[in-house]
Amino acid sequence: MIIDHIGIVVKDMQKGIEHWNDLFGYKQMTEIVENTRQKVNVVFMHKDNSQLIKLIEPTDETSPIYAFSKKGGGLHHLCFKCDDISTQLSEFKTKGIRTLAQPEPGEAFDNENIAFVYAKQGLNIELIDTDKKANIL
Amino acid sequence: MIIDHIGIVVKDMQKGIEHWNDLFGYKQMTEIVENTRQKVNVVFMHKDNSQLIKLIEPTDETSPIYAFSKKGGGLHHLCFKCDDISTQLSEFKTKGIRTLAQPEPGEAFDNENIAFVYAKQGLNIELIDTDKKANIL
Repeated sequence: MIIDHIGIVVKDMQKGIEHWNDLFGYKQMTEIVENTRQKVNVVFMHKDNSQLIKLIEPTDETSPIYAFSKKGGGLHHLCFKCDDISTQLSEFKTKGIRTLAQPEPGEAFDNENIAFVYAKQGLNIELIDTDKKANIL
Repeated sequence: MIIDHIGIVVKDMQKGIEHWNDLFGYKQMTEIVENTRQKVNVVFMHKDNSQLIKLIEPTDETSPIYAFSKKGGGLHHLCFKCDDISTQLSEFKTKGIRTLAQPEPGEAFDNENIAFVYAKQGLNIELIDTDKKANIL
């Protein structure tokens, strides 16, 4: 498993995109995709030789990240690519890692399954399959 | 500027090292280095083709990261490599970015200067010079 991207919560998507472009030179890589179940908008941003990032904006007050965004947002999760999500979740389970949500289609990943776990020590982890890439523009 | 590493706060360094090794296959890359001014211990961990990470443990209750570690720890900052810290700080200043600490020797970087800024939108950012690498074992 290697890190695919860093998930970063923002209050306002357009301001977040401008912020990452202006300060760090990151470019928008995908369209903004809405996840209606998680009630978030997400967008991927990239820069050559630098870690891929994903900006996440809540779409309403019932979004799981709404409270975090209200506090200002910031670093939220790390997403790891794994060979098989189900196998990885089973392995995590034997190690006492808590699954936050069952695997479900990730709109930003061509509706392939993603999963979220709480990996102890304050770490929210997202899992995607190794061969998946974010939908590009 | 590209991301050099992800800074992650842990309550207990040995448990953090074991956690990242056991769950994600990361290996300890450096010795544990104490920063007496910031009152933290830091260690770098790596995995082929995956983003470098740095674990940070407070050494006492007056450490700036103590409260965060007590709440469980987790993702804390992103460190960017830049061509020249002073130039980058000046540029950030014109954009209203707040410097959290003046450039000071980073023990884990051969005592070359590092700097911390608060880049708005909840982001703590560390800066190091491009040619610097963490002291290795």
